[in-house]
Amino acid sequence: MTRYKLTLEYDGRGFVGWQRQDNGPSIQQALEDAIERFSGERVAVTGAGRTDAGVHALGQVAHFDLAAARDPDEVFGALNHHLKPAAIAVLAAEAADDDFHARFSALGRRYRYRIVNRRAPLTHELGLAWQVPQALDEAAMAEAAARLVGRHDFTTFRSVHCQADSPVRTLDLLSVERDGARLFIRAAARSFLHHQVRSMVGCLALVGMGRWTPDDVEAALVARDRAQLGLNAPSDGLFFVRADYPDEG
Amino acid sequence: MTRYKLTLEYDGRGFVGWQRQDNGPSIQQALEDAIERFSGERVAVTGAGRTDAGVHALGQVAHFDLAAARDPDEVFGALNHHLKPAAIAVLAAEAADDDFHARFSALGRRYRYRIVNRRAPLTHELGLAWQVPQALDEAAMAEAAARLVGRHDFTTFRSVHCQADSPVRTLDLLSVERDGARLFIRAAARSFLHHQVRSMVGCLALVGMGRWTPDDVEAALVARDRAQLGLNAPSDGLFFVRADYPDEG
Repeated sequence: MTRYKLTLEYDGRGFVGWQRQDNGPSIQQALEDAIERFSGERVAVTGAGRTDAGVHALGQVAHFDLAAARDPDEVFGALNHHLKPAAIAVLAAEAADDDFHARFSALGRRYRYRIVNRRAPLTHELGLAWQVPQALDEAAMAEAAARLVGRHDFTTFRSVHCQADSPVRTLDLLSVERDGARLFIRAAARSFLHHQVRSMVGCLALVGMGRWTPDDVEAALVARDRAQLGLNAPSDGLFFVRADYPDEG
Repeated sequence: MTRYKLTLEYDGRGFVGWQRQDNGPSIQQALEDAIERFSGERVAVTGAGRTDAGVHALGQVAHFDLAAARDPDEVFGALNHHLKPAAIAVLAAEAADDDFHARFSALGRRYRYRIVNRRAPLTHELGLAWQVPQALDEAAMAEAAARLVGRHDFTTFRSVHCQADSPVRTLDLLSVERDGARLFIRAAARSFLHHQVRSMVGCLALVGMGRWTPDDVEAALVARDRAQLGLNAPSDGLFFVRADYPDEG
């Protein structure tokens, strides 16, 4: 048996999300089907982050096992060939240690959220960003973001469908940067709760609009009550950027 | 009569280009139709740059006249409403002087070209970038680009369909920058010949691949012969970024 590690990019539009589901095409299933087409083996693919419907990836990480060893470069080429025309690309394919696990070995995960802050509708970024027409104050958003960094009970920012044992997470980074009409929100943590990034981004947007203060965000966090959530940002702007593992430089 | 200046963003996919044609939808026609739907007036829209099929815009500029004066903010809102679902957005609408001309008043035009330099196929950037699998040497490309800057006869880099009176243009900027797998080529000039940016990018890519030297690019320029052109880059990666006018700060 040989274990392979994949680094993946995908456009989340048209997918029900990472995880295989009965109601439509998933990233996981597209990968498993492509692996079967070139290797003849039916395998299970495990991802570092189970992204939701419409959420994109720039550097998702996944692993799977093959009974017959293959050259990683063959895996790279064959998978990219058999994935077409799905908007999923294998950026890298490597042989991995048998104990490498895309989900459980990950020491950190990074997400990026893109807001286009303007009144005009989106064109080439449609489905790839959240258009917010109201003027956003990025300094206030950054101040509110700082209140969420650290180890907290994130119950307020957790989907009712979240399956994690504990609502406690350590948020290592939550930054807000503006580049013209575009705002980029970056989040890093060992792991996130279901909908945590989108829930945090939604509340930061309320702060940016002046409808909430940074204190309101902190009060919502401390309340540990999902009903206190101000706004869940749409999936469109969310990108899974990367997962970090122990052996990497 | 009131003249209006529009700043436009669009996704060039699905359009035959800026100019009205019989063989499919154009940006110009979509704008003229939208203006008629909200104003009842059939007008002609003039653009700063007549982008080709599949070429995008981040800041195209256009003008048109209305017999009945309207508030520019009404023009902004109504046009964005009536343009849907076309991937064309009005970023700004202003009243302009009667002698403002989007094409003839422009003192400068800027384009940006995006290359994704990797073996993996594109996902969310499909149609918005040129994927080049061979390793590109951006330093060699920048050196070659410098040979093209200045006032030259650009016959080699001009489409056979170019309608300009003279093949002489002054290229103010042609820069090459890498950001990870992405290369951004920026070009600025008072005006460009038809296919000039894509022709220059194609030759720079040949240099990046090591198939041409910067000297080869200069020799092709001096030859003033379209048959010397190495490669025309696809429309996908090309964005019309902005047009500059005399009265602007």
